[in-house]
Amino acid sequence: MYRTHNCGELRKEHIGEKVTLCGWVQLKRDKGGMIWLDLRDRYGITQLAAEETNTDRGIISKIDKTGREFVIKVSGEVIERFSKNDKIPTGDIEIKIESLEILSESEIPPFTIIDNTDGGDELRMKYRYLDIRRTPVKNALLLRHRMAQEVRKYLDSQSFIEIETPYLIKSTPEGARDFVVPSRMNPGEFYALPQSPQTFKQLLMIAGMDRYFQIVKCFRDEDLRADRQPEFTQIDCEMSFVEQNDILKIFEGLTKYLFKSVKDIDINYYFPRMTYSEAMEKYGNDKPDIRFGMTITNITENVQGKEFVVFDSAEYIGGICLGNGSEYTRKQIDDLTEFVKIPQIGAKGLVYCKYNTDGSFKSSVDKFYTADDWKTIAAKMGATQGDLILILAGEKERTLHGLSELRLKLGNELGLRPRDTYAPLWVIEFPLLEWDKESSRYHAKHHPFTSPFDEDIPLFDSDPAKIRAKAYDLVINGIEIGGGSIRIFNRSLQEKMFKNLGFSKEDAEAQFGFLMNAFKFGAPPHGGIALGFDRLCALFGGSDSIRDYIAFPKNNSGRDVMIDSPSTISQAQLNELGIILGEVK
Amino acid sequence: MYRTHNCGELRKEHIGEKVTLCGWVQLKRDKGGMIWLDLRDRYGITQLAAEETNTDRGIISKIDKTGREFVIKVSGEVIERFSKNDKIPTGDIEIKIESLEILSESEIPPFTIIDNTDGGDELRMKYRYLDIRRTPVKNALLLRHRMAQEVRKYLDSQSFIEIETPYLIKSTPEGARDFVVPSRMNPGEFYALPQSPQTFKQLLMIAGMDRYFQIVKCFRDEDLRADRQPEFTQIDCEMSFVEQNDILKIFEGLTKYLFKSVKDIDINYYFPRMTYSEAMEKYGNDKPDIRFGMTITNITENVQGKEFVVFDSAEYIGGICLGNGSEYTRKQIDDLTEFVKIPQIGAKGLVYCKYNTDGSFKSSVDKFYTADDWKTIAAKMGATQGDLILILAGEKERTLHGLSELRLKLGNELGLRPRDTYAPLWVIEFPLLEWDKESSRYHAKHHPFTSPFDEDIPLFDSDPAKIRAKAYDLVINGIEIGGGSIRIFNRSLQEKMFKNLGFSKEDAEAQFGFLMNAFKFGAPPHGGIALGFDRLCALFGGSDSIRDYIAFPKNNSGRDVMIDSPSTISQAQLNELGIILGEVK
Repeated sequence: MYRTHNCGELRKEHIGEKVTLCGWVQLKRDKGGMIWLDLRDRYGITQLAAEETNTDRGIISKIDKTGREFVIKVSGEVIERFSKNDKIPTGDIEIKIESLEILSESEIPPFTIIDNTDGGDELRMKYRYLDIRRTPVKNALLLRHRMAQEVRKYLDSQSFIEIETPYLIKSTPEGARDFVVPSRMNPGEFYALPQSPQTFKQLLMIAGMDRYFQIVKCFRDEDLRADRQPEFTQIDCEMSFVEQNDILKIFEGLTKYLFKSVKDIDINYYFPRMTYSEAMEKYGNDKPDIRFGMTITNITENVQGKEFVVFDSAEYIGGICLGNGSEYTRKQIDDLTEFVKIPQIGAKGLVYCKYNTDGSFKSSVDKFYTADDWKTIAAKMGATQGDLILILAGEKERTLHGLSELRLKLGNELGLRPRDTYAPLWVIEFPLLEWDKESSRYHAKHHPFTSPFDEDIPLFDSDPAKIRAKAYDLVINGIEIGGGSIRIFNRSLQEKMFKNLGFSKEDAEAQFGFLMNAFKFGAPPHGGIALGFDRLCALFGGSDSIRDYIAFPKNNSGRDVMIDSPSTISQAQLNELGIILGEVK
Repeated sequence: MYRTHNCGELRKEHIGEKVTLCGWVQLKRDKGGMIWLDLRDRYGITQLAAEETNTDRGIISKIDKTGREFVIKVSGEVIERFSKNDKIPTGDIEIKIESLEILSESEIPPFTIIDNTDGGDELRMKYRYLDIRRTPVKNALLLRHRMAQEVRKYLDSQSFIEIETPYLIKSTPEGARDFVVPSRMNPGEFYALPQSPQTFKQLLMIAGMDRYFQIVKCFRDEDLRADRQPEFTQIDCEMSFVEQNDILKIFEGLTKYLFKSVKDIDINYYFPRMTYSEAMEKYGNDKPDIRFGMTITNITENVQGKEFVVFDSAEYIGGICLGNGSEYTRKQIDDLTEFVKIPQIGAKGLVYCKYNTDGSFKSSVDKFYTADDWKTIAAKMGATQGDLILILAGEKERTLHGLSELRLKLGNELGLRPRDTYAPLWVIEFPLLEWDKESSRYHAKHHPFTSPFDEDIPLFDSDPAKIRAKAYDLVINGIEIGGGSIRIFNRSLQEKMFKNLGFSKEDAEAQFGFLMNAFKFGAPPHGGIALGFDRLCALFGGSDSIRDYIAFPKNNSGRDVMIDSPSTISQAQLNELGIILGEVK
């Protein structure tokens, strides 16, 4: 037997017991005839002690050989510590070393295994097995484990059945790019890795499974951004005989359950529900951070017709009001102006107006607007004396985006977005379709299986962009945690949808024929949701980066630098698969 | 709201309540002015009733239109049934139909959705979503769900952490064939899908995670046999600071916990532990079914030297004893002889000896053996009067295999292998290496990371085939449920192992360099196990076929006939991936 206890469990009441521990040497200290070792494992740290004169020479020489990250096995008596450490749960005791065995030696690691030293991203990824030894990363993985267990506990209690759907499926080029897998047994043919189990979960509803869930890996061959991974994990769910409200209730319940069970946070209110158009108008964004106000006001009609050509020629003019901001300096306002001019925002400039504490106004466009004009605008925006009004103008969508970014930046700077405050909401009534200029056709905003509002179906023939979808997103702190929809369960409506998305009958049949076929045999009304599990874990962990919540993440080129993958394969493998490298010119 | 209750929950105490149910029409019966419908969902069946004269015409006409597998929504009062059905939990009540809505129509399904009609394998697979509506398949998936939840509950309670390992990893041609995934972002390079998370779980131990588990999909591009799938699911586990016995204890515990929590079966004994060599000698098989005896006896030394050239020239002669078999007819024995001659067994013939109830012997080789000879043989085999001795001879391994097959066949025929009796055991002390005639080198019997017995390490230089491994299999009812081993955690021993397996230093470095490298930084002693989850579910469900326990299985050519995958992909996709179809000549 290697150990009687782990390194996190010994307390005062164990004093006098003989124990055996195993772990990694975190630290060695040598002071006036005493040697201390901090022994670390997943569960904690326990201090080991040896008095140089009173300890067996053999043990002392082994301790001398021992360095950081050596794996050792130690036996000895639990004794009370002279100077206690109330920062760790084992801080009352230490082990008087009576025997010591070096189980594994360690070279000096490329970075020190402590909370605040990680050697930088490259090294961390290459030596991920050392990075995971660090408490913050270890705790991220423990949190993820806990969350996965609690998700299952809740969904199981709600009669959801966990069903594994296949990973080797069929390529459906709609949406992002698929990863494909050549089939050796069917030469010239390919499987695809799922971007989501969407069609399978719908088939499970048609199969009568009623409530399905899965915590499942999904794959997208996209050019990667900082917080995207080619493989990621979803909490994937589907329910039969439900309307939108039934689904929101269940997953609001899941969210509250997780906050309570994992973080001991009570959320004792219904999540607000905000329509997509309200979110866009008030926050410039379909995933609003509602931890703070500073919402956007459309002041187009209040500022046009005053000879200010920039505003008069703009499609839209909107503003936000910074409470107690009238004392902002020239420099501060210049910085904000620079910010809105960066290419990702692309505003031409920023108009401001200080509503001074004495009731006067001072703006960057004083020659066009009177104090009375400002009074009206301030009233509309809810600005009061001492506030700062910030205004952007231009093409509507772009301007709203700019105001949203400006609002979030100010929120960050003013400390209005604390990590330990959570503000969940549902965004609902998304548009069903989205016009894609590049391909000159409509795309599904959510996916092609999302049901339109019944009363909006006639708009297919007149104004498809106005059709509202029975689709919803769960948003927390400005992060889209997940989304879902009520699905089409009727063959002819699904055909209409494919047609509007520009699918030929043949393409629709080739790609989704099996689903359309299944609709012939009694499909129940159904709908579902998928939550991004990596992101949910990061949110609960108080981090912006999902990488720390993934045991072995890939870098921005989709590489695993630890195992050095992807890599070349042998000619024999290529031959067996019937593929040759190189592009047809 | 679609429903107030599901179709499995209404009881006598609900009589008088107004309810709304949704489901599929299982059956419609029309009898003397009354119409009954059986409404089915995942939870059960509820009978609906309408009296033709007393029911709204509109409802009657809707009922008339309704056929099998239509999806309907029905409201009405719960009333007591006139003739009760004690075979279903809702059999005391029925619903008096007060309104009815057809939610989805159904064409006549290709096979009837009842327990005993499945339309044959082809149709079942093509219309898997209809097949799953059938109770036996539905129950298989519900059982699988339950087992997955209980596995996690147990392992979580034992401090195991569920950690997701990556699916896009690196091809390591050792072992079975990998499925590979071309990388668009790294042209000419490939990911591989994991055959198991073996190296990652070892890295997690080096990372200090102490106890890891995962219920995880694994992939093998093998030519498929009836019970193999290209993607399959493992319960994958690894532990640090453990010896073999620690691991067996934990997973014996898991097995017992599952039998108790899922099937309410108590197993109140330690699982027997049998060495590989004992299993081979006594059962001819490294996964013995110990629900019945009829073990093999080596009688080589008892039958040689009696002028019977078949035996004299054989490497090995072994027999099994069929209790009360002396009355077997010529025909019966001929059938057994035919059986052992099939190519998969390949015996030249079967020698028998009847130990008659009068104490006399009658054998097929009477001219070579006296009654005294047989008395000695019978004594050695534990045969008594009335038994039948069956003997095979030839090359040892092959002959033991034949005796094993014969034993299992007789066990089946005599009803000695009942589905509801479970006999688990551990098979231990597997050989570390296995000589492969074809490639003229040793292969790892388990895998290259398995630790040899410490005292056997010197045999690397003298007789590698004799080295025993710290490896173990969990076997239940003749089925290998899973296996594992204590791993090598020392770089130089791992190098020695790779060398013995014929790896060049460069190959070992290219394929497993990251693991060897990790060993430099303090690897703990560790070991683990992987259980075949599909098979475990089938065993618990009392089935030989794993397919029913997989929601969407593939056929023997690795095809999903429902979605018609694998399939061709577009030239644009191939171009993006930089691959051309066709083999280099």
